Amino acid sequence: MKTLEERIRKDGKVLPGDILKIDSFLNHQIDVKMADEIGEEFYRLFRDSAPDKILTIESSGIALSAAAARCFGYIPVVFAKKTVAANMAKEVYQAKERSYTRNIEYTIQVAKEFLHEGERVLILDDFLARGEAMNALIEICQQAGVKIVGCGSVVAKTYQPGIDRIREMGYDVEVLAKVSYMSDDGAIEFEE
Amino acid sequence: MKTLEERIRKDGKVLPGDILKIDSFLNHQIDVKMADEIGEEFYRLFRDSAPDKILTIESSGIALSAAAARCFGYIPVVFAKKTVAANMAKEVYQAKERSYTRNIEYTIQVAKEFLHEGERVLILDDFLARGEAMNALIEICQQAGVKIVGCGSVVAKTYQPGIDRIREMGYDVEVLAKVSYMSDDGAIEFEE
Repeated sequence: MKTLEERIRKDGKVLPGDILKIDSFLNHQIDVKMADEIGEEFYRLFRDSAPDKILTIESSGIALSAAAARCFGYIPVVFAKKTVAANMAKEVYQAKERSYTRNIEYTIQVAKEFLHEGERVLILDDFLARGEAMNALIEICQQAGVKIVGCGSVVAKTYQPGIDRIREMGYDVEVLAKVSYMSDDGAIEFEE
Repeated sequence: MKTLEERIRKDGKVLPGDILKIDSFLNHQIDVKMADEIGEEFYRLFRDSAPDKILTIESSGIALSAAAARCFGYIPVVFAKKTVAANMAKEVYQAKERSYTRNIEYTIQVAKEFLHEGERVLILDDFLARGEAMNALIEICQQAGVKIVGCGSVVAKTYQPGIDRIREMGYDVEVLAKVSYMSDDGAIEFEE
């Protein structure tokens, strides 16, 4: 997705330690027009897979998933939670995720009432590096007995194992901006 | 907002302990059409205040804020963060918030680069009870020297002090569904 790659080049920040920040338009401040275009692109890529529902994870996946859901005719978006609220449903699916940027292990949760056996689920997220978050979402889908019709990520580092791991599990993975190289001095390259 | 009140009556869950759950369409699963309608209503209510930016808090404020931002001609949405990432900006505004449903105190954060002195900011959130989250967002705006042009909440409990506290601070507060009564056996009433 050319407009996204250009935006990452312009406003993304490549930091030492293999960190790409897109805080200014997706992860902290949201450019809703960009999020809408991302949603439209996911719709174009996954239209034929006819999902009943989108599963994402709080917080950065929400705006783009809502945008995609609109294109799919307003299918529901479920976002997995990283913290437990006192009023959260007792019946939940859980999976563990190690966050690279926070360096802690989360237990992510989805209430059982929002995923039903046999449903066609599209998983969307913002970043795919080692694939920890996407894996946790896949695990939750497997527990729920839903059919994963595709996995979409806004950005992926193709030199990290996440993308291949998920393809090897047999899932259709689409990535809008494939980062093939980042250097500590701020350079970034994308795969064609 | 009648459609919202009807939806809360139909799909909201009133639980013992003065808890209202709207997990099935806003806080865990999102009905994006409903979120869009909420955004449109906030636009109608705050159109004349001409905000430059919307400030909300992760996670449940994001979808509705994005929907409102679209109506305002795609103004940016900034969401305050409840956890600290290793790659988060070092320069942040901070405020404390006590969460009723999680029974913990958060430090919420907004990177200084996303709020600029003199900007016109509309604060939007999902719930207003004792006003802790809204207060924390107001405090961050004050630190940043932005002008708060309005405060919008999807739901507020009018028998709790939050809404009045914020009005007494001199801010324009708009609430889409004003809950005037909830009982432990599941009844709910709305203020006209």
